[in-house]
Amino acid sequence: MPSPSPPVILLTCGDPAGIGPEVAIQAWVATPWHARARLRLVADPAMIAAVLAGRRGMPALPVAVVGADDPRPSTPSELLVVAPAETAAAPVPPATVSAAGGRQAAAAVLHAFALVRAGRARAIVTGPLHKAALHAAGYDVPGHTELLARGCGLPDAAASMMLWLPDANGSGGLGVVHATLHQSLRTALEDLSTERIAAAGKRLAGLLAALLARAPRIAVAALNPHGGEGGIFGDEETRLVAPAVALLRGAGLDATGPLPADTLFLRASRGAFDGVVALYHDQGHIPVKLLGMHRAVNITLGLPLVRTSVAHGTAFDIVGSGEADPTSMVAAIDAAARLVAAGWAG
Amino acid sequence: MPSPSPPVILLTCGDPAGIGPEVAIQAWVATPWHARARLRLVADPAMIAAVLAGRRGMPALPVAVVGADDPRPSTPSELLVVAPAETAAAPVPPATVSAAGGRQAAAAVLHAFALVRAGRARAIVTGPLHKAALHAAGYDVPGHTELLARGCGLPDAAASMMLWLPDANGSGGLGVVHATLHQSLRTALEDLSTERIAAAGKRLAGLLAALLARAPRIAVAALNPHGGEGGIFGDEETRLVAPAVALLRGAGLDATGPLPADTLFLRASRGAFDGVVALYHDQGHIPVKLLGMHRAVNITLGLPLVRTSVAHGTAFDIVGSGEADPTSMVAAIDAAARLVAAGWAG
Repeated sequence: MPSPSPPVILLTCGDPAGIGPEVAIQAWVATPWHARARLRLVADPAMIAAVLAGRRGMPALPVAVVGADDPRPSTPSELLVVAPAETAAAPVPPATVSAAGGRQAAAAVLHAFALVRAGRARAIVTGPLHKAALHAAGYDVPGHTELLARGCGLPDAAASMMLWLPDANGSGGLGVVHATLHQSLRTALEDLSTERIAAAGKRLAGLLAALLARAPRIAVAALNPHGGEGGIFGDEETRLVAPAVALLRGAGLDATGPLPADTLFLRASRGAFDGVVALYHDQGHIPVKLLGMHRAVNITLGLPLVRTSVAHGTAFDIVGSGEADPTSMVAAIDAAARLVAAGWAG
Repeated sequence: MPSPSPPVILLTCGDPAGIGPEVAIQAWVATPWHARARLRLVADPAMIAAVLAGRRGMPALPVAVVGADDPRPSTPSELLVVAPAETAAAPVPPATVSAAGGRQAAAAVLHAFALVRAGRARAIVTGPLHKAALHAAGYDVPGHTELLARGCGLPDAAASMMLWLPDANGSGGLGVVHATLHQSLRTALEDLSTERIAAAGKRLAGLLAALLARAPRIAVAALNPHGGEGGIFGDEETRLVAPAVALLRGAGLDATGPLPADTLFLRASRGAFDGVVALYHDQGHIPVKLLGMHRAVNITLGLPLVRTSVAHGTAFDIVGSGEADPTSMVAAIDAAARLVAAGWAG
């Protein structure tokens, strides 16, 4: 009996005016996953040809434009490009915000999304979008995640993300999920609840279990200085966070907390935990940026599909300079492939 | 005409049960400041003799017990100890919380304080206290800073601190001052005001100017994600923080902000700023811990004296093991000596 075909994983470039095409091409060459997955780059073939020919540091890589159901394996030495339904009428100027760039980026990711939803691919790995270009193209969404949520017929709020630092802690990687995210700190305090914190912890633990292939050790941050200092500096720790940790432990998870956020992230960076629930945006983002955002991966939670993304932006300032670093894209492919292999389904 | 005598700088050990005596003795040997300052260790001579004899990794250093006004220079090869007015009746057990340890720690720092207030010394450099030992000894204060504030006849709230990371950013060091500190996040949001933020920025800039001997570049953090994202995620940036930055610039300071906190600390760690005003405890402490709290120095602001301190704790778990790292104490002596040399007076 033949073994099943390796899963198809789709890469997209994000905004073609940014470094997305460069890091996608470099990651194509660098990833070891061709051995166990079939990679395809969903992109306008003319754009890819222009990037390969015109930007510094690009490999001399032949391109084959293939159909979405072409069964061939992928290799590092040939780029397999699937053209989206809609391709560009005119070239997109590099390092510039343009409606054309936003349109091309959206067309590629929506095509990849349709292939995954139709069961013709197993995961999407996305490059960096430019929000203003997306807006100029008529897509009124903050980013990929909301675009995909709407495609699934779900409200934006259904989706969340885990920031994944594959080499932050010397013990397999560190994941960070936020209980509240893109809202003012004041409303975040109002919206924090035991349910939200526990839900974030459950998503975090489920995703980490698939990525790490073992029971993850997760920690929940405290809200207040010194974790509330026994109630002197606030009561959210006993009123909201500790009950959430109890719920997680009751569900059989290895959960600890509330822990003072400053020492927690230091301990997590030294390998004490595999994942952290941050209670608000900056509580998670300050340490993640310091620990190496340029190597981080963004993994979508709450949607019925595997989607990972670079955590960096379009970096217009270095487009075409040869300085773009594909580390995050390589890690995003790795995370997607591991999640597919684990049978994780969002 | 003879040059004026080098200034007298007093070291104290903090709680004698902790690593304070070890790092003070190691720092005495390591600091280059004997060349330009006269150092004295204010401590119970019997305790120092016991530490030198009984803890691993201590140098074979002769001790001279001297009067507070003994004019001799200090050298790395002889420890000059000034005995506080009150000395211990019995030895303090190491690595244990005790009232005797708290009493001895308080006696030393209060003696050093009295000498500075009387003009017989110029600065105090303190080792780590243990709050519970201090409480057991009858001192109902959170730490040194409040003890000194009360000694100056000032309310606890008059004093604040700058966390100083001497080698965090490759451009001479990074200072962090908090606009709110030991209070719940909820009340911190209520108490934040343009006046508080501007006052913190002024103290920060004044201290950094003395430490760095140049006009410092300071930045003020935003409160909300992405700095409020143009008002979508909160209005504190425009309502409170931007006016504070305008006040600082109006006072001739090189102040920038509000800047999103996550990228701000990353940029500061790469040398873009000399100092940051953090708006609440964890916003400053999460990055400072990740950037190397064990090397950090705590510098008192708002009191009419120069006092610096290690930023680490008593570390009972490694007392006597030879593992105590004097880096922070060496840096605290360095900061105090530079502030004295600059004529900074709190």
